[in-house]
Amino acid sequence: MGKPSYHEERGLAIHFLLDVFSRFGYGANGITRLAYSESDKLAKRQFIQLCENEGMNVRVDDAGNVIARRAGVGIEKCAVACGSHLDSVINAGSYDGVLGVLAGLEVVRMLNRKNIKTKYPIEVIAFTCEESTRFGVSTIGSKAMVGLLDMNIITGLTDKTGISFEEAVRLQAFDLARFPQAHRSSDDLKAFIELHIEQGPVLEQKKKQIGVVGSIAAPTRYRLIISGEAGHSGTTTMQLRKDALVGAAEVILAVEKIATLEQHFYSVGTVGSLHVYPNSVNTIPGKVELIYEFRSNDCATKHQLNLNLLSIVNDIADRRKLTVESQLLSDESPIELNSFIGNIIKESCEKRDISFLEMASGAGHDAMNMAKLCPTGMIFVPSVRGISHQPGEFTEPFDIEAGVDILYDTMLRLAEPI
Amino acid sequence: MGKPSYHEERGLAIHFLLDVFSRFGYGANGITRLAYSESDKLAKRQFIQLCENEGMNVRVDDAGNVIARRAGVGIEKCAVACGSHLDSVINAGSYDGVLGVLAGLEVVRMLNRKNIKTKYPIEVIAFTCEESTRFGVSTIGSKAMVGLLDMNIITGLTDKTGISFEEAVRLQAFDLARFPQAHRSSDDLKAFIELHIEQGPVLEQKKKQIGVVGSIAAPTRYRLIISGEAGHSGTTTMQLRKDALVGAAEVILAVEKIATLEQHFYSVGTVGSLHVYPNSVNTIPGKVELIYEFRSNDCATKHQLNLNLLSIVNDIADRRKLTVESQLLSDESPIELNSFIGNIIKESCEKRDISFLEMASGAGHDAMNMAKLCPTGMIFVPSVRGISHQPGEFTEPFDIEAGVDILYDTMLRLAEPI
Repeated sequence: MGKPSYHEERGLAIHFLLDVFSRFGYGANGITRLAYSESDKLAKRQFIQLCENEGMNVRVDDAGNVIARRAGVGIEKCAVACGSHLDSVINAGSYDGVLGVLAGLEVVRMLNRKNIKTKYPIEVIAFTCEESTRFGVSTIGSKAMVGLLDMNIITGLTDKTGISFEEAVRLQAFDLARFPQAHRSSDDLKAFIELHIEQGPVLEQKKKQIGVVGSIAAPTRYRLIISGEAGHSGTTTMQLRKDALVGAAEVILAVEKIATLEQHFYSVGTVGSLHVYPNSVNTIPGKVELIYEFRSNDCATKHQLNLNLLSIVNDIADRRKLTVESQLLSDESPIELNSFIGNIIKESCEKRDISFLEMASGAGHDAMNMAKLCPTGMIFVPSVRGISHQPGEFTEPFDIEAGVDILYDTMLRLAEPI
Repeated sequence: MGKPSYHEERGLAIHFLLDVFSRFGYGANGITRLAYSESDKLAKRQFIQLCENEGMNVRVDDAGNVIARRAGVGIEKCAVACGSHLDSVINAGSYDGVLGVLAGLEVVRMLNRKNIKTKYPIEVIAFTCEESTRFGVSTIGSKAMVGLLDMNIITGLTDKTGISFEEAVRLQAFDLARFPQAHRSSDDLKAFIELHIEQGPVLEQKKKQIGVVGSIAAPTRYRLIISGEAGHSGTTTMQLRKDALVGAAEVILAVEKIATLEQHFYSVGTVGSLHVYPNSVNTIPGKVELIYEFRSNDCATKHQLNLNLLSIVNDIADRRKLTVESQLLSDESPIELNSFIGNIIKESCEKRDISFLEMASGAGHDAMNMAKLCPTGMIFVPSVRGISHQPGEFTEPFDIEAGVDILYDTMLRLAEPI
């Protein structure tokens, strides 16, 4: 059971463990713990050992998800699960994903410490490959668990160094052909709850400690390939140019304007990725590739935003004599989470007198896949200044402790103490 | 003197040689013959051999410029020189630079064929490292010849693979410390004439075969580092964003607008290079680095364009709560070429009934450095559709032949046939 000091100082253990996990993949510019990398493997191994120390039964499924189980009394199936992911983006902070995994472990430690048994088993899951950073597709582990993985798409993925997804998992002793066997039956799980940092500024601004997530907004993403004509920057008059970058500049401003005009349903629009060709100081850009996304909690709104943009893009292309090719990259529907679980989370907050806000998640999470398998809820804790996916990512210790307490109450009520 | 067919079919030799030289650095996406690379060395070696075949005395100076000399009768100094460069950008065409070098060789071949001797020596020069592609600084060879090379700047240069300029020249058996010895005295040269493709669409549009270049516009270049705040694209509301890329988009459009409004003095403005950080689909861009340039034949106009832009950049930064750092990269003055030589070129055109246009060069050339050493002129031939620095670069064979004829007449008149 470890040294008593972790348990006597309630909440200290998780802060200590967040620090321990931040060392896997630590570098000069933050934490880089890409899916199926060596540092990712070390983090999983550390998590497995900590779970086994708490008497849990741990297995790694065929996709690489770690599933740690605390037995229930009498009931074998219908686990009450919680968890999140251990992989990170490039130059990440210490909280995204890891916090939800360690909070689940902390719940089990608290139950063990108090010697509380539950009717239903409790699971803490560390999903694999949640971030799209390495292979361009997100939440691969939870998709596999829910049976949503499109093997045709997965088979074609490669990372920036040219390593295929298949090769990457093989190097970690997994077999891509066996990934579909990670699919679980809905009988296996009674509920799933993900605690996660908000990654936005809303809770901080509204001075609330807990976000009760009602829905998860999903992005619609397009790649635009804007083609004009490269030319020498000193010899082509302004009138004769077909500059792909000035066309792209108008697109970027149009994405911002369209999303800003539509304030409802948490709608946002972003151009996050852009490449210029040939990208030489003395050459008029002949081609620009950019990826834009719109997110909204409302499908029809998101669809309308995209139609508005594509109409403006056509105008820009006509006026500037550019050609534009658009490729749909992803178009996921917003996910409604389970309101029964949401109510339990809210009641837990009220009982402990912790402030909360019903809100939507702008980011995608493993919970959005799990919602298709079993009743699912999400708990947000505040992100200072809304910063995320950067070394400056931070959540106040007392907010983390509030989150762990609410997760504990919610899990215990669903798993039924005996 | 080679096979007679090259000489009997006037003009065939240069087309054949352009084809030969296009094989040095040839690849799937065009020609890549970076300065001080192996393919650059092979091209120089081929040029040296061709000149020696024509009975010329060839030397390579301490910077790597190849200087091939056809002796004059009686006079040792005061050569009438022509030439251009053999290095290329990445994925280049077959004409930029090479044409001017081979046209000079063709003039000598024609003089040999006709057995014409001249009072003054004739030189054909292949300048080294004209393109800024590899090390970010252009016309290094001609700068060394004219004594304009800033050794402090040159010493700090590296290419994208991390090879320093010093190392790169050492690998080609040159010694950077000896570069200043390439400096020639103005007594050495009576005149310099560079034949070059226009790299723009003006001659084609105005249906002229020859451009008589009166001045060379020079760029003023700034790097802008625009910093905002990175954040998750799904969780940061539009109002709370500090998106560096939308700020950059406004800058790009401002550069275009300012340059378009100013139609005089061949003024143009371009953002050719732009990098987004972290450049991830689901992250609001926290930083953008871009390089813009203005070019004009008039110093005061160019200065004013830049002041206008910087004022707009400040407004953008204030309004969007971004910070902008600007770094001056280069600020060269426009160069006036020698009108006496320009008149000889025009008279040659009139005598042969070849159409011509007095014009400015928007691009920089070795001639702009040589103009500080001796009376200098430039001859442009048309670029089909204005395309340059790409595999699609093309000049019609009969335009090349007209260019060679005008270069021949001009060189012969300056070198004085006896």
